[in-house]
Amino acid sequence: RPRPPALVPVLGFAGVILVGAILLSLPIATTSGRSTPFIDALFTATSAVSVTGLVVVDTGTHWNAFGQAVVLALIQIGGLGFMATSTLLLMLVGRRATLRDRMALGLTMGTPEPGGAMRLLRRIALMTLIIESVGVLLLFLRFTQEMPPGRALWWGLFHGISAFNQAGFDIVGGFQSMIPFQRDPWILLTMAVLITLGGIGYTPLADVLRCRTWRRLTVDTKLVLSTTAALLAVGMVGYLIMEWNNPATLGHLPWGDRLLNGYFQSVTPRTAGFNAIPIGEMRDQSLVFTIALMFIGGASGSTAGGVKVQTFSLLFFAILAAISGRESVVAFGREIPPRQIYQALAVVLLAIAVVFLVALGLTVFEPFDAIDVAFETVSGFGTVGLSTGITPQLGPGSRLFLIAIMFTGRLGPLTLALALAARPTRRGIGYARENVKIG
Amino acid sequence: RPRPPALVPVLGFAGVILVGAILLSLPIATTSGRSTPFIDALFTATSAVSVTGLVVVDTGTHWNAFGQAVVLALIQIGGLGFMATSTLLLMLVGRRATLRDRMALGLTMGTPEPGGAMRLLRRIALMTLIIESVGVLLLFLRFTQEMPPGRALWWGLFHGISAFNQAGFDIVGGFQSMIPFQRDPWILLTMAVLITLGGIGYTPLADVLRCRTWRRLTVDTKLVLSTTAALLAVGMVGYLIMEWNNPATLGHLPWGDRLLNGYFQSVTPRTAGFNAIPIGEMRDQSLVFTIALMFIGGASGSTAGGVKVQTFSLLFFAILAAISGRESVVAFGREIPPRQIYQALAVVLLAIAVVFLVALGLTVFEPFDAIDVAFETVSGFGTVGLSTGITPQLGPGSRLFLIAIMFTGRLGPLTLALALAARPTRRGIGYARENVKIG
Ligand SMILES: [K+]
Ligand SMILES: [K+]
Repeated sequence: RPRPPALVPVLGFAGVILVGAILLSLPIATTSGRSTPFIDALFTATSAVSVTGLVVVDTGTHWNAFGQAVVLALIQIGGLGFMATSTLLLMLVGRRATLRDRMALGLTMGTPEPGGAMRLLRRIALMTLIIESVGVLLLFLRFTQEMPPGRALWWGLFHGISAFNQAGFDIVGGFQSMIPFQRDPWILLTMAVLITLGGIGYTPLADVLRCRTWRRLTVDTKLVLSTTAALLAVGMVGYLIMEWNNPATLGHLPWGDRLLNGYFQSVTPRTAGFNAIPIGEMRDQSLVFTIALMFIGGASGSTAGGVKVQTFSLLFFAILAAISGRESVVAFGREIPPRQIYQALAVVLLAIAVVFLVALGLTVFEPFDAIDVAFETVSGFGTVGLSTGITPQLGPGSRLFLIAIMFTGRLGPLTLALALAARPTRRGIGYARENVKIG
Repeated sequence: RPRPPALVPVLGFAGVILVGAILLSLPIATTSGRSTPFIDALFTATSAVSVTGLVVVDTGTHWNAFGQAVVLALIQIGGLGFMATSTLLLMLVGRRATLRDRMALGLTMGTPEPGGAMRLLRRIALMTLIIESVGVLLLFLRFTQEMPPGRALWWGLFHGISAFNQAGFDIVGGFQSMIPFQRDPWILLTMAVLITLGGIGYTPLADVLRCRTWRRLTVDTKLVLSTTAALLAVGMVGYLIMEWNNPATLGHLPWGDRLLNGYFQSVTPRTAGFNAIPIGEMRDQSLVFTIALMFIGGASGSTAGGVKVQTFSLLFFAILAAISGRESVVAFGREIPPRQIYQALAVVLLAIAVVFLVALGLTVFEPFDAIDVAFETVSGFGTVGLSTGITPQLGPGSRLFLIAIMFTGRLGPLTLALALAARPTRRGIGYARENVKIG
């Protein structure tokens, strides 16, 4: 009996993590020349392939150039996806993917026709190459003013690719992420644009390039763009209000840099995971706010995690329908089928249940504050990578737990949504309608 | 321009609270003979009329017989509802309610025809009288073994009415609630049955009496009964697992009393608010579990609070529809219209938003743990009345905040649901359907 095609990407994903973990556990990957405990190597590989960015060892100081290159390769494979990367590699050596592989590829990319998947893949690879190249160049130009050109190129390459793929890994050293550059608009804005484009993903961007007018965009693109813009605005205003006078985060910065950092902090939960202000020093209300933003995440079909902006906005439009007394959910002049609302509901409520149970479990086994544990859980499940700083202090059991969460968080919501959408439709004809009491 | 009928119950509700607060602030209402600060009297009156049960002064020792009688009257008015009580009082003195009053009554009871509302009211009053009388008698028979008959009757009356109306007020003294009776199955089981019947409400109970077979019950009744049973089972198992070895709650009790208290603790979040084990000593995971149960609450149309079991179960059936690939939500062989699912979604997500913002605000202004503040907020919003013990320590601002929350919690979800349901339907015909990416 042939394996179901949906299993291939999952097995490939797991295989890449395993190979990465083995490479990273070797002494040739570290600056110290000593081997890394396998669980830490596995944690790093899972975090890289799932483009999360949570780390138990400091990427900039623990790994040498080879180790960092392995991490970067895992990030790019994870960002493009296992099926896309392997198909691209086959194409590079002049071989054609089999029909079954192309079908599996189409499944992970949401295009059912095998031909369409190959065309889509070529375009995605091209867009990734162009945007990443521009980003790396811009970062290199700035870094080269601070360090030798070779090192500046490596920093540009690493952080550019890490940003566009929402990976959140940095090689700045000392678990600092972008904090040393918090007063550098060139670096932060370049990163912010890379993160935002990466968190929107190919299909909406291509739709914008093709249509050029708002009216002709698909509803999916409109939802992605409007929700992303709304989250950026709400996020920036929220962080500025809550952290403006906190001397440990924004308070010590001049006026302009507060705005810059408020903006960058509103970009990063979608789900890049870089931070230019210390997360552990943020006020509790900002942590709760960040948890909500990380849970929503970026666009479905992009490298971002979370339950996705489309899923979230469908629930918003469903509430709007209820309040305005509509029979059906209407977004941007189009009716969204009830079935999609039920699917969005399933994704969000099951994600809440998973996060809830995992956070509860970790609270029992770890001595940290409930808010830090909840933050870490949502950060892992949303493949965000922001942390209040507890990751390296977690016990081995909790590390394994988080590895499972990052894996589930990267594959779970999409796989669930695809599985739900792929179900043969069973019409409800034959059932009488009946109302119940609500509220 | 005549006032909209929906405003009459809200104004009546507020008026009863104000009269109650004035009476309770008088020196004639306290054992000490001193007057009570108006904010504490207002808090008590709001808690009683909204059948919440959060208290800032101890009901059994602070108030004298007159004060307790005022509280009990407020509970019964709040439990029946302002419109129902005033109509009943008019009937008692031989006068007929006006058509407009009967329409407002029908609105609050969910029966549009004025004639039906009066018939329904008479039956509800009769059922309340019968169940409360049996409950009071059973409690009296037990209390009379411990205290003089007059006092035993008052205790039976107070706790019986308080239990059936989900009020959670007790006159045991020392903020103890039912803890002194934690090894008394007669008391706890009587209270549990009163709470469960009160939390189901008239319509489903009448439906059961009329139909006598499961198959012929309405979907609303089936949802109420099955969800209530499921929550009781899950709640009991959950508390037994999480508290079995906690010496401060269940751990010091013999085996049989642990089962009894696990059961009673699973009954009380629906949304009675009595407790026989100390809530503040429960483990964090039990508190989080209780928050979830309190948020769901009891049946719509009963005196219970929360978002209501029907609302919650509709979302569950929507997820089931998504997972099984149905076009429509089917519960017990009936299709639930999409519009109702969107309404349930609106009620739940708006309730989450309110609780979230209020808890955030209280966390900023109060020194207590986030979990205790979240617990108190959901307890107030769900009109539950359970507390980890922080209520009497809250500052005046937070007390006013909680007063607003109890008021909103009692009227909000139902009013919102009624307002949504009463909206003229706008069909979505004319909109093209379009799918978006989810997950
Ligand atoms: K990330
Ligand atoms: K209550």
